[in-house]
Amino acid sequence: MSDKVTVLVAGSWGTALACVLADNGFQVSLWTRTSEQAAEINTNHRNDRYLPDAILPETITATSDLEEAMKGTAAVIIVAPSKAMRDVCKQLKPHYQHDMLCVHATKGFEVGTLKRMSTVISEELEMPEQDVVVLSGPSHAEEVVKRMPTTVVVAAANEKAAAAAQTLFMNEEYFRVYTNRDTTGVELAGALKNIIALGAGLSDGLGFGDNAKAALLTRGLAEMVRVGTVLGANPLTFSGLAGIGDLVVTGTSKHSRNWRAGYMLGQGKSLDEVMNSMNMVVEGVRSTQAAHDMSRHHHVQMPIAEQLYRVLFEQADPRTAVEALMGRDPKNEMESMKLETWKQWHA
Amino acid sequence: MSDKVTVLVAGSWGTALACVLADNGFQVSLWTRTSEQAAEINTNHRNDRYLPDAILPETITATSDLEEAMKGTAAVIIVAPSKAMRDVCKQLKPHYQHDMLCVHATKGFEVGTLKRMSTVISEELEMPEQDVVVLSGPSHAEEVVKRMPTTVVVAAANEKAAAAAQTLFMNEEYFRVYTNRDTTGVELAGALKNIIALGAGLSDGLGFGDNAKAALLTRGLAEMVRVGTVLGANPLTFSGLAGIGDLVVTGTSKHSRNWRAGYMLGQGKSLDEVMNSMNMVVEGVRSTQAAHDMSRHHHVQMPIAEQLYRVLFEQADPRTAVEALMGRDPKNEMESMKLETWKQWHA
Repeated sequence: MSDKVTVLVAGSWGTALACVLADNGFQVSLWTRTSEQAAEINTNHRNDRYLPDAILPETITATSDLEEAMKGTAAVIIVAPSKAMRDVCKQLKPHYQHDMLCVHATKGFEVGTLKRMSTVISEELEMPEQDVVVLSGPSHAEEVVKRMPTTVVVAAANEKAAAAAQTLFMNEEYFRVYTNRDTTGVELAGALKNIIALGAGLSDGLGFGDNAKAALLTRGLAEMVRVGTVLGANPLTFSGLAGIGDLVVTGTSKHSRNWRAGYMLGQGKSLDEVMNSMNMVVEGVRSTQAAHDMSRHHHVQMPIAEQLYRVLFEQADPRTAVEALMGRDPKNEMESMKLETWKQWHA
Repeated sequence: MSDKVTVLVAGSWGTALACVLADNGFQVSLWTRTSEQAAEINTNHRNDRYLPDAILPETITATSDLEEAMKGTAAVIIVAPSKAMRDVCKQLKPHYQHDMLCVHATKGFEVGTLKRMSTVISEELEMPEQDVVVLSGPSHAEEVVKRMPTTVVVAAANEKAAAAAQTLFMNEEYFRVYTNRDTTGVELAGALKNIIALGAGLSDGLGFGDNAKAALLTRGLAEMVRVGTVLGANPLTFSGLAGIGDLVVTGTSKHSRNWRAGYMLGQGKSLDEVMNSMNMVVEGVRSTQAAHDMSRHHHVQMPIAEQLYRVLFEQADPRTAVEALMGRDPKNEMESMKLETWKQWHA
């Protein structure tokens, strides 16, 4: 096997994963959008726009030429924004060979179709969806490049593909990798947790306390499990690194864009004001729209996502939304978990 | 039914629950250890030692006479420290009638026997264990007395008992109560999460980041699920309010005694120094010992609890303990979850 691996594209998370692979002894080819960015990385070993404090290993070579980036590579790691994923895969197709391992680390659904990223990738690269590996988990890029202890999960229905990705990324110093075979669950968890992070920010912005935020995270997780099982995920995946692990980081960190957007909404700002002031994509806003559509389409109760939808898109008062959540009928904690679905998983 | 309910004893959580019950329209009798504390509550409507900032409703009446506290009551709520539980129940026995609802809100195991609190209660009050209700979840007493939104779970194998407790405590303003029938899971989650909170503090004390802490919380949850299922709990209970909900509050809040104890250990202090400076019970230290014993006895892998045990009781270096966790063999995220146990639960 070649010791070359390729990472697309050179945002903060793509660059951080490139560093892990370089630390693990691979020759890393990092595809950049512009030749200026490639030159900066090759000359200064820095990526100032996305990871200003990091010095990159010299075994990372950047190029804006995708053919060169892919030539003779053993594996391709795709870290594109969800809305660019299909386009990136179309560009990648002529250079992709079916013996190359394909891993992606993108969170979110395709706009419009609500397709998961591994579906989009398998369609465009004309490869079996079971061979696409997703990498996810609680992982600030800024901490990974400082070699601070981090754990992630790699999931693929094809266990050999997941095991290969584990071998690629895992090291004993700071990067621990678990496998899972539930791609659907890992991808849904990554996309849906942004909604709950937005809700956690909203709660903090309204001045509520730790009890309320913990309730939001926990009951938000229950919603993720409900919709996830309907879509074929293993409910326990949501208790793992891609689910609760990532939810804890995103929902309790002031660095999270989703948390910040929610916080501003809680303080009385409008969605337009929030979006203008952030000048960046807030995945949770798009995911709330997606969850609203899924909830209707699959007849799954998602009261938290529903109230957030009303705050974001129907100018509902955030405080009234919380009151509506507290005033619902008494429930059993396990209600509307689909027992049949679990039995399927554990048969 | 009488509208009188009785709470034992007047610590911070017992007093906060008494406030909820008073807000819900009940006449609350609060049992205190001393007549001085009873007089303070009855005269000043304050409990300065445990909840200095709260004004208590006037429908809370305190007494140090247990017979008077229990006379004609419809329900007894026991909130004693775990090590005092058996003794409190022995005192309660002569005044307890079997038509009274019995709820407890104590986290931890009995020292020595490792029995759960509902087992101790059912033994001493000579009542069926299935009728004992446990109340748990993410709930700082300080926020509850400020009427900030809070959710908890009440669990009993006897669903009627759990539903009665839900009716007692739930209100539409700030206190939302879910039922569950898995007493074992709710009690184990409440006791074991203190270990993970200790670990989270240790990680922060060592200067590790959000990624490491999220990993600890998530993989700690996986350990709780593993030992819990062996002991007959429903694995999904650990994803609920008593599990991950409480874990988030305890593991990310600097107000948590367990987190603080771990933080000091991470900064290089010895267990003796930590215990002397806290001047208070740190449940997580006792629970780590309990988990160590359970892990051996039931042959369940609990690597995080094991490393914490080595730091607490065998003078292991905390940094070496983390390195040992990172350097373990590659694993599947779902490994050693007992599928048979789940099938039992969902049959």
